[in-house]
Amino acid sequence: MRAVTITDGNLQWTEHPDPEPEAGELLVAVRAAGLNAGDLLQLAGHYPAPAGSPADIPGLELAGEVLAVGTGVQRYAVGDRVMAVVGGGAQAERAVVHESCALPVPDTLDWAGAGGFPEAFTTAHDAVFTQAGLAVGETLCVHGAAGGVGVAAVQLGVATGAHVVATVRNPDLRDRVAELGATVVAPERFAAHGPFDVVLELIGGPNLRDDVRALSIGGRITVIGVGAGPKAEISLLDLMAVRGRIHGSTLRARPLEQKAAAADAVRRHVLPLVTRGRIHVPVAATFPMSAAAEAYERFRSGGKFGKIVLVAGN
Amino acid sequence: MRAVTITDGNLQWTEHPDPEPEAGELLVAVRAAGLNAGDLLQLAGHYPAPAGSPADIPGLELAGEVLAVGTGVQRYAVGDRVMAVVGGGAQAERAVVHESCALPVPDTLDWAGAGGFPEAFTTAHDAVFTQAGLAVGETLCVHGAAGGVGVAAVQLGVATGAHVVATVRNPDLRDRVAELGATVVAPERFAAHGPFDVVLELIGGPNLRDDVRALSIGGRITVIGVGAGPKAEISLLDLMAVRGRIHGSTLRARPLEQKAAAADAVRRHVLPLVTRGRIHVPVAATFPMSAAAEAYERFRSGGKFGKIVLVAGN
Repeated sequence: MRAVTITDGNLQWTEHPDPEPEAGELLVAVRAAGLNAGDLLQLAGHYPAPAGSPADIPGLELAGEVLAVGTGVQRYAVGDRVMAVVGGGAQAERAVVHESCALPVPDTLDWAGAGGFPEAFTTAHDAVFTQAGLAVGETLCVHGAAGGVGVAAVQLGVATGAHVVATVRNPDLRDRVAELGATVVAPERFAAHGPFDVVLELIGGPNLRDDVRALSIGGRITVIGVGAGPKAEISLLDLMAVRGRIHGSTLRARPLEQKAAAADAVRRHVLPLVTRGRIHVPVAATFPMSAAAEAYERFRSGGKFGKIVLVAGN
Repeated sequence: MRAVTITDGNLQWTEHPDPEPEAGELLVAVRAAGLNAGDLLQLAGHYPAPAGSPADIPGLELAGEVLAVGTGVQRYAVGDRVMAVVGGGAQAERAVVHESCALPVPDTLDWAGAGGFPEAFTTAHDAVFTQAGLAVGETLCVHGAAGGVGVAAVQLGVATGAHVVATVRNPDLRDRVAELGATVVAPERFAAHGPFDVVLELIGGPNLRDDVRALSIGGRITVIGVGAGPKAEISLLDLMAVRGRIHGSTLRARPLEQKAAAADAVRRHVLPLVTRGRIHVPVAATFPMSAAAEAYERFRSGGKFGKIVLVAGN
């Protein structure tokens, strides 16, 4: 097969040995694979693939058709349309996925949408619901709402009956996020729209002091992105005064059974919304896999609404 | 009645109008009332009593006999031995307690022990179990383990089958804490005994960076004391790497129904241990209520093991 590979910090489109499905795994003909911030970190050498994932092929999510199955596979068969979060290796013509982490692709998603769905929606659902426990009638603030995870979190918040306040740095993207049902504000004005029961922090440390001060009683912050830097300075009295809590999390480092649990939560709680048309996967741009370097550059330049997705066939 | 009162930042033992039990409240003849850090804060003008509590009488916990009941009281009758966390007013000959927050005094507790039990054990149980979810087989670190809440948390941790590591600043008190079943270490050496599933932070901000770094995967920190200062500087990447969380909390500011729920958790999960002799209330010293100023000075000077308790009758 051919694959996007990282060699000495550069992306190439090269021949690579096919992966082999082991017990419980699916071999998937990849039709689309979304880009994520983790790919840029890995390219820069800061985010090595976990054990069991290809060390030199990036890509944290994919959608495609099952080509073959390993021993013991029960849930999927050759020809099924699947999508999944993977530890790495998604940006290739073929990849392996453990069946416990694979999701069926609803008919309402095309390949590009399916390839850009798993990482963003699993991350958003896990952060906002499994960790922070957002509930109907609450107020959710999403910092950095125009990116893949932000767009997912805004839609999930709106779907669950929360009032969603979204900060978007780029004024050109605010209308797009508002169309998802959020009250969109400039980052420096967010606190005036609180207090918040849940804050999803996709920007990082510099926001945290004000996030804590904007919490309602019993409020929760979940930090899953630190693009603006990891260092946070907070007053613990502020946190105690609201009886709040701060979560930090990543999806990639989790053991298989936890990833499977996160996928199962998406299957039960998010896929029905996709099927019913309540949730969409905005795709900002697609690139052929062979043009991965160009796609990464587009991702890095920011100012996009939704996902950048690599697609097969060129 | 007579009561400890705060006038212009000074403590006095003065005549004061009796409180009157309203619907659902008990009028209690106070036999003992423990001191807490909150009393010192209130004396210094930093921690005013919440609405509905006497503004000028300190005291966050008490034990005594029911003298009279308000309308609608169902759980207790005149003559019952009760103890409770209150919003204020405990350091007086008489005080009112809502019946939903009152606990029966087990026969195994004398008045001084009962007067020093409610605040410390309710705070410790709420922080370590209700918030942080300490479970059998986990490792708990208690920072500041020789004080009232610390002694309670160590005993609850040991009772639940956790491995308990306790930091104690004063070397003279380490043996006493070790006798409760903890591995006692100097504060600067605690990280070598981790990683920890739960950290109970009773000291404050300066510890927090190292607390986060000493967490196990999925670890939880609960901050309920900031005597060393509220400012905390952490790396969010450290928190994300362990998928950890940080809670901040106080008991006093909660609405009645939450205080009642905390008391009910103590009734179900802690009182059985007291009755069976698994948990003790170390009392460092007792003072008559009329000598409250002396008792506060003893509390302020530190270096004590367990509670300072004011007792009635002089």
